Amino acid sequence: MTDETAVSDARVLIPEGISVRVRVPASSANLGPGFDCLGVALGIYDELIVETTASGVEVEVIGEAALEVPRDASHLVARAIFRGLDAAGAVAGGLKLRCVNAIPHSRGLGSSAAAAVSGLAAASGLLEGAGVRDAFDADEMVQLSSEFEGHPDNAAASVLGSAVVTWIEHGAHQNRYRARRLVVHPDITATVFVPDTESSTSVTRGLLPESVPRRDAVFNVSRAALAVVALTSDPTALFAATEDRLHQDYRADAMAPTAGLVAQLRARGLAATVSGAGPTVLVLSAGPVPADARDIALASGYVPSTVAIAGGVEITRPS
Amino acid sequence: MTDETAVSDARVLIPEGISVRVRVPASSANLGPGFDCLGVALGIYDELIVETTASGVEVEVIGEAALEVPRDASHLVARAIFRGLDAAGAVAGGLKLRCVNAIPHSRGLGSSAAAAVSGLAAASGLLEGAGVRDAFDADEMVQLSSEFEGHPDNAAASVLGSAVVTWIEHGAHQNRYRARRLVVHPDITATVFVPDTESSTSVTRGLLPESVPRRDAVFNVSRAALAVVALTSDPTALFAATEDRLHQDYRADAMAPTAGLVAQLRARGLAATVSGAGPTVLVLSAGPVPADARDIALASGYVPSTVAIAGGVEITRPS
Repeated sequence: MTDETAVSDARVLIPEGISVRVRVPASSANLGPGFDCLGVALGIYDELIVETTASGVEVEVIGEAALEVPRDASHLVARAIFRGLDAAGAVAGGLKLRCVNAIPHSRGLGSSAAAAVSGLAAASGLLEGAGVRDAFDADEMVQLSSEFEGHPDNAAASVLGSAVVTWIEHGAHQNRYRARRLVVHPDITATVFVPDTESSTSVTRGLLPESVPRRDAVFNVSRAALAVVALTSDPTALFAATEDRLHQDYRADAMAPTAGLVAQLRARGLAATVSGAGPTVLVLSAGPVPADARDIALASGYVPSTVAIAGGVEITRPS
Repeated sequence: MTDETAVSDARVLIPEGISVRVRVPASSANLGPGFDCLGVALGIYDELIVETTASGVEVEVIGEAALEVPRDASHLVARAIFRGLDAAGAVAGGLKLRCVNAIPHSRGLGSSAAAAVSGLAAASGLLEGAGVRDAFDADEMVQLSSEFEGHPDNAAASVLGSAVVTWIEHGAHQNRYRARRLVVHPDITATVFVPDTESSTSVTRGLLPESVPRRDAVFNVSRAALAVVALTSDPTALFAATEDRLHQDYRADAMAPTAGLVAQLRARGLAATVSGAGPTVLVLSAGPVPADARDIALASGYVPSTVAIAGGVEITRPS
C-alpha cells in the first residue's frame, strides 16, 4: 500500500541558503490575427531574488501592484516555484522572495505569465544549484509555464524572448504546449500605449462567439501567415499582417477607448493591435511612432513608451 | 460623347511577327492550414510559344489534355494573352500559340492558374517586345492573374515561384491581390501523389460551411503561422504545420480515396495534405518519402513523383 506521507517524504529537499536571481520580460499576446498563438517579448522586466529557507514563505514586493498581491505561499511566484520544484520531485522547506516588479498588472502585458515564468525559472535555478537536476530546457519551461498560467503565447514569449508562434497539441491526458521562436527583423520597433485602467482576460474572453464566419477564419489565417513574414523579413507588411477579424471587434464594446485608439492609429497607417486582452495598445513599426500619433494616445489617457523586443528569461546564480 | 469603336481603335496594335516563349510551373494551393493563402510552386512545367499574326487565333496543344481544350480564341491561354494586352491598352490582330503541357488538368495542381500566368506573361513579353511598355512587374502579374483565374495562392506561386503567402485587400471597386514569396528551406522536398481521377474546385468549394467553430479557426491560425516557420527555417515542424480543420475534413466525403491516403500518410508521420481542391496529395518532407509510403499510394492508384520547389514563371524573347 502506498502511504501519502511516505510519498511526500520521498521528495528531495532543496537545502537552505540556495539562492537564484531571475529577470523576466513582459509580453504582448494575441498579436493582431494571431489569437492565442502569436506573442512578442517586450523590454519591461520583473526581477526576482529567491533564497531557500528552513520554513515559511516570506515575500517582499517592490514596484507594480506591491500593495495588492499576497505576501505568503499563495503569491503567484511562490506557487510557481513550488510547482517547478514539484515537477522535479523536489520541495523547499521555506522560501524568501524579493520581487521588483515593473510590468503593469492587468493591462494586457503578460504580468501573470511573467510571474509564472519567473517562478519556474527560479525553481530551475534552485534545482540546478542544489544538484538535483539540470536546469529545465526551453521546451520544459514552455510546457510548465503554459500549463500553470494558461496563456502559452505570453508564457512562451517570456521564456524564449523575441517573437513566438505557439500551438497546442491536445492529448487525452495532457495538452502539450509547443512554441517556436522567430528572429525579429532588426528594424522593428515596439511601442506600448498603457492606460491607467485594468482589464480582466476572463471577462473579455467570454465575449468571443463559439462560431465565426468561415471567411473571417480564412482572413485571419492569411494574415497570421503574413505576420510571420512581416515580423521576420518584411516590416513593410506589418499593417496588413496585423489585421484581425477573430477577436478584437467582438471585445470592442467592452473596451471602447482601447478599440477607439486602435482605430485612430490604424487610420494613420500604424500597425496597432490590442495587446493581449487589453487595455494596452501595441504598435509595431519600422521606425518611431510619429509625434502626432503619440499625442492622440496621450489625449485619451494612454501613455506611449517605446520598448525593446526583449530576450527571454534570464537565470543567474551567485558564483 | 464617347464612341465605343473609337475607344477600341485607340488601342495600340502589337505588330505581326513578335514572339515570346514562356515556361510556367505547377502549384499546390490550400497548403495544409493555409486555405486560399498558402501555395507552393512545383517543378512540373507548361511551356508556351506565342507569335503575333495578322488575324485569327491558331492553337496547337501537345501533352496534357491536348484533345480536350478548345483550339480557338476561347482557349484559356489565348484569353489571358488578350486580357494582358488589354490591360496595357493594346491588342493583337491575331495569335499563333504552341502549348506544350505537362501539368495534369483538374488534379489540384494549378493548371488553370498556370495557363493564366503563362498567357499574361506572354502578353507582358509581347508588350515589351513591341516597345509598348516595360514587362509587368511581379505585383502586376499577381494582380492580373489572380483576377483572371480566381486562385491567388496558385497564381502567385506560379508567378513568384518558391512558396507564397497571399491575401486579399477587399476594395469597393476592385479586390487587390497581394503576395509575399518565402525562401523555402533547402532541405524541403515535395512529393505529389497524382491519381487518374479529376476533381472540380467549384463542386468541392460548395461543401465548405458558411461558419466554423472558433476553436477550429484559432487552430488553423496557429498552424498557418507555424507553416511559414516550417517552410522557411524549421522543416521539423512541417507535420504540425500542415494540420488543418477548415477545409479538408469538409470535403473528405467527396474525395474519399484522397482523404484516406492523406490519413494513411499522416499516420506514418508524413506532412501530407490535399493539393488545392484535390484529388492530388502533396507531401512536404525533409528527406525522401519512404518506399512503404509510396507503395501504399501506388496501391490506391496514386502515382508518387518527387518534384522540385520551382522558380517563378520565365519569359524569354528571341534576341
